[in-house]
Amino acid sequence: MRDFLPADVRKRNYVINIIKQVYESYGFEPLETPAVENLETLMGKYGEEGNQLIFKILKRGEKLDIENARSENDLSDLALRYDLTVPLARVIANNRNALPKFFKRYQIQPVWRADRPARGRFREFYQCDADAIGSASMLVEAEQILAVSEILRRLGFNDFTIRMNHREILRDILDTAGIGVNDHATVLIAIDKLDKIGTDGVAKELSARGIDESASKMVLDIFEQTGKIEGRHAEINRTIVGNLLNIVSQEVLADIGKILRYTAGAPVLLDPSLARGLSYYTGTIIEVNVPDLAGSLAGGGRYDGLIGMFGKEQIPACGVSLGLERILVVMDERGMFPPEIAGSTPADVLVTLWSDETAAESLKLASELRASGLRVTVYPEPDKLGKQIKYADTIKVPFVCVLGESEIAENTVTLKNMRTGEQQTLPRSNAVSLMKKLGE
Amino acid sequence: MRDFLPADVRKRNYVINIIKQVYESYGFEPLETPAVENLETLMGKYGEEGNQLIFKILKRGEKLDIENARSENDLSDLALRYDLTVPLARVIANNRNALPKFFKRYQIQPVWRADRPARGRFREFYQCDADAIGSASMLVEAEQILAVSEILRRLGFNDFTIRMNHREILRDILDTAGIGVNDHATVLIAIDKLDKIGTDGVAKELSARGIDESASKMVLDIFEQTGKIEGRHAEINRTIVGNLLNIVSQEVLADIGKILRYTAGAPVLLDPSLARGLSYYTGTIIEVNVPDLAGSLAGGGRYDGLIGMFGKEQIPACGVSLGLERILVVMDERGMFPPEIAGSTPADVLVTLWSDETAAESLKLASELRASGLRVTVYPEPDKLGKQIKYADTIKVPFVCVLGESEIAENTVTLKNMRTGEQQTLPRSNAVSLMKKLGE
Repeated sequence: MRDFLPADVRKRNYVINIIKQVYESYGFEPLETPAVENLETLMGKYGEEGNQLIFKILKRGEKLDIENARSENDLSDLALRYDLTVPLARVIANNRNALPKFFKRYQIQPVWRADRPARGRFREFYQCDADAIGSASMLVEAEQILAVSEILRRLGFNDFTIRMNHREILRDILDTAGIGVNDHATVLIAIDKLDKIGTDGVAKELSARGIDESASKMVLDIFEQTGKIEGRHAEINRTIVGNLLNIVSQEVLADIGKILRYTAGAPVLLDPSLARGLSYYTGTIIEVNVPDLAGSLAGGGRYDGLIGMFGKEQIPACGVSLGLERILVVMDERGMFPPEIAGSTPADVLVTLWSDETAAESLKLASELRASGLRVTVYPEPDKLGKQIKYADTIKVPFVCVLGESEIAENTVTLKNMRTGEQQTLPRSNAVSLMKKLGE
Repeated sequence: MRDFLPADVRKRNYVINIIKQVYESYGFEPLETPAVENLETLMGKYGEEGNQLIFKILKRGEKLDIENARSENDLSDLALRYDLTVPLARVIANNRNALPKFFKRYQIQPVWRADRPARGRFREFYQCDADAIGSASMLVEAEQILAVSEILRRLGFNDFTIRMNHREILRDILDTAGIGVNDHATVLIAIDKLDKIGTDGVAKELSARGIDESASKMVLDIFEQTGKIEGRHAEINRTIVGNLLNIVSQEVLADIGKILRYTAGAPVLLDPSLARGLSYYTGTIIEVNVPDLAGSLAGGGRYDGLIGMFGKEQIPACGVSLGLERILVVMDERGMFPPEIAGSTPADVLVTLWSDETAAESLKLASELRASGLRVTVYPEPDKLGKQIKYADTIKVPFVCVLGESEIAENTVTLKNMRTGEQQTLPRSNAVSLMKKLGE
């Protein structure tokens, strides 16, 4: 887990602000949940691999009985949030009556997984989720795809693709290949790695997991044939018909067709081999990729069964999640941050400090400058003027206001432009307008 | 620990944004640290009571040996952040060369304490800290007091007081009363409760902790005599001299006098009985109170010894911490939120959906409206118009754009003003300007 120094935080906030703005422009409302959930809320929601990666919190006080503990569950009752979707499902089930029948929320918070760190993968990382609760309409999927596209475009990405699939398509393909329902989860976890380990890798993993080799070959052959389908509109329907008609239901194909129609303009393609790792998806699934990153920048899907696990009512739901860290890794490598973010400074102006006796006057000048919207730092202790200027240079502040005894006596200030080195003494009331003029 | 629904998050963000703006205007830079720290980083930094309240994380995989575990330390290696000051000290010690010699950072993040919840006290809560590293000058304290005052004033508080004290004043008072150095920490923890349990309560607690009764009486008598000293400038010096001259060093009195001079205009008063619970403070300490809350809205102090515990170098430091939850509790009870925050809506306009066939057109209109800066939500599925209007009313959206087959054919939109109930059909391109006009 990492510390973020000021330059890092500014980049993170730049990306988060764009994500927030776009989500809000689509009518998503902010929601926040605690970092800590009851352990039982999380267990069994993410598949077997997920269970292993949950950070568990030690029981406290009398509840902790080390002597008689036999398992992790005897020692732990709480856990760190693993994603933002399961907490959302819990919130919806608990607050159904306080929320509108269609509820669109966004949530930008960290999650924790006890995973091995890799490029763009950390044990603490931020998810930026937008979910719509209460509707089974494909307009929901379409809006989320459009929102993600707009976010990535506003961040400067122009080479991303949004791969889409449907859990029923996968199920139908596995059925067609003769893979039993009990093996579906196992097979999906292997297929999810297709992009990383290739066809041969997946074949090996399926074999190791005891899947019949002819069935496994048939699944991979179907993926080979369908490929990634890039057509749209009438065309996509023809392509899908040609490749999948005998396998997939008309209803699912119609849903896929709708999403493609509604998202015209976004780089969406149908990829029948897209699996997604999490076990709670029930319908459409998506994943967003760029060429220079093995993992995905975003992912999501429909999970119509999850909320029912926390309440009596089964409520349809669908969401998308942007991975902040991966977006930042790619933007950093490509140099995609605007200059005002990449080269930001702690303040617009430094006010010098002449002596203890003039300190109150330096603070007063700082307060006047702040009132006009400037960010101002005061040199904290009496020191040689050269040292104060050098410090201003180190922290890259563009202006220094020198306030010595003569300036105070004459109600002036000596303004030094740190970029050009020029300086001039002027009435205190004129300092702000000159800085604004020079700063343009 | 609590969930925050949209109306809560908006209030929280309103307060956080003002805190951020003011901190940034004072030249503080943003820093973020992970929620999870090594357990050993936190242990022993907060006093004995603090150690008990740290949430510990269970070891994972092979590191966890339940059978042979004898203590909590055998079972846990990580812990949840308990405050933002100790992580900052660790960051400074680790990154000394990457940071300027004077480093001012702010940090607004949650911390966790396994405490009994009370009014304004939660197990997960946000601290909003501003700290200055590298200078022992009293200008540092003054700037932080001024920043906190400005934040509280901008939030609408006008009845807060900033109590100030110095750990050396307390030490000198305890010495004068004949309390041995080894009992100082115990006595300070009891004195810290003076506001909550009163003089008698503290006397009882001191007696229960085995402190000599005549010494304990003398300490409380001194506090009685000094009271809370409200004077300023020359006056404060006279008052302090009268009450404390024989006890406290000239140097500390001079420092206190400087802070009072530099913060003229802020409601600062010297309270020789102010103790603060945390063990790492070494110099000035402050606490900010309002009449209608037993706890404090903010607190802070100088901790010149803490960074040295993580590195070779002893570096002076001083900080202040605003408690977000307590500020929110008081603001909620007093009704201090501006109407646009208290009555905010998920969107500015709802676009209706006529049928699957017209869905793409509704999405297109939504996209046009968003391009002009509006927050737009689209009704997700075909439904009776009355139901769509009713939903818009439920979520309190001020405008509805009805887009039926005739509107699409004629390139118009029917705009309904939800406040007045009036509606009119107009060219699509005019909808935005009319909404902006009506919204004023």
